[in-house]
Amino acid sequence: MKRILVDMDGVLADVYSRFFDLHEQATGSRLSPSDVAGMPESEAFPEQVSWVSAPGFFRHLPVMPGSIEGMKKLNSVFDIVVISLATEFPQSLTDKQLWMHDHFPFISWKQLVFCGNKNLLHADIMIDDHPKNLDHFPGETIIFTQPHNINIHDTRHIRISSWLEAEKLLFKKV
Amino acid sequence: MKRILVDMDGVLADVYSRFFDLHEQATGSRLSPSDVAGMPESEAFPEQVSWVSAPGFFRHLPVMPGSIEGMKKLNSVFDIVVISLATEFPQSLTDKQLWMHDHFPFISWKQLVFCGNKNLLHADIMIDDHPKNLDHFPGETIIFTQPHNINIHDTRHIRISSWLEAEKLLFKKV
Repeated sequence: MKRILVDMDGVLADVYSRFFDLHEQATGSRLSPSDVAGMPESEAFPEQVSWVSAPGFFRHLPVMPGSIEGMKKLNSVFDIVVISLATEFPQSLTDKQLWMHDHFPFISWKQLVFCGNKNLLHADIMIDDHPKNLDHFPGETIIFTQPHNINIHDTRHIRISSWLEAEKLLFKKV
Repeated sequence: MKRILVDMDGVLADVYSRFFDLHEQATGSRLSPSDVAGMPESEAFPEQVSWVSAPGFFRHLPVMPGSIEGMKKLNSVFDIVVISLATEFPQSLTDKQLWMHDHFPFISWKQLVFCGNKNLLHADIMIDDHPKNLDHFPGETIIFTQPHNINIHDTRHIRISSWLEAEKLLFKKV
């Protein structure tokens, strides 16, 4: 059974929706994905670090559309490991696991990894929205479209823009 | 640089000292390591699961004697990764990382892994007190003596009983 590393933020958790909400609360105007397309998250949302460092940020993120259904299907035919570079923000750790339990209860605690370096793990396939995580992974790499990465045209990574596309692509690789 | 996976509980954190304290608080009598030698932790301390599930348990554990000095030395010549099977107890995650930051501030967040399955990681050497983690590791395995494992005589694993022994053994393997 092939092992897939599935990233949380920007793949399972819709972080941008929450960033747009918080930006609107602070400024009164709402941004859209096209307003921040191609910008690093830290540039699009300069307050980002204080937002994500606050207790509770990761506890109440919306779920990426289609991800629950997609993960249910993939979990029956792949060795799924959900991984998050979470140790940079210690207060996020418990929130992230409780969030997983709320929305993806079929993913067991044995399938979770919270770490500071994704290169420590071995697997066959990695799905992530950040090229920095994908670039050094020795297996197949899938980049999940998010506003910050739309100008990345690295042919080493297969691009998908939705969970329906993820299912379609991955079921060919079982 | 060789990578070493270093377990937290029973290697860096002196869990038994805390178990003895809690047992004494509950019963009025204090056990010693010889009283529980060779017994699984769950048998020696039937209340163990409720103790470790309570918020705060992992936040205030004593540090294993010699571990800070030993880790400082090893961290300069090995690729050290501290790993804990922590996702079974979501409330422990943030506590564990804050504890690491208090006692081992020279270990960066990039060197931490909290997961549900240690077989996901690749490394050269693993130090752990639980044979279940060591038995399937493909590299060199070092068993750290704790009361529950003293009757394990598996010749695949090198036994050490202190951090001084850990330093002595590992500096030969740099």
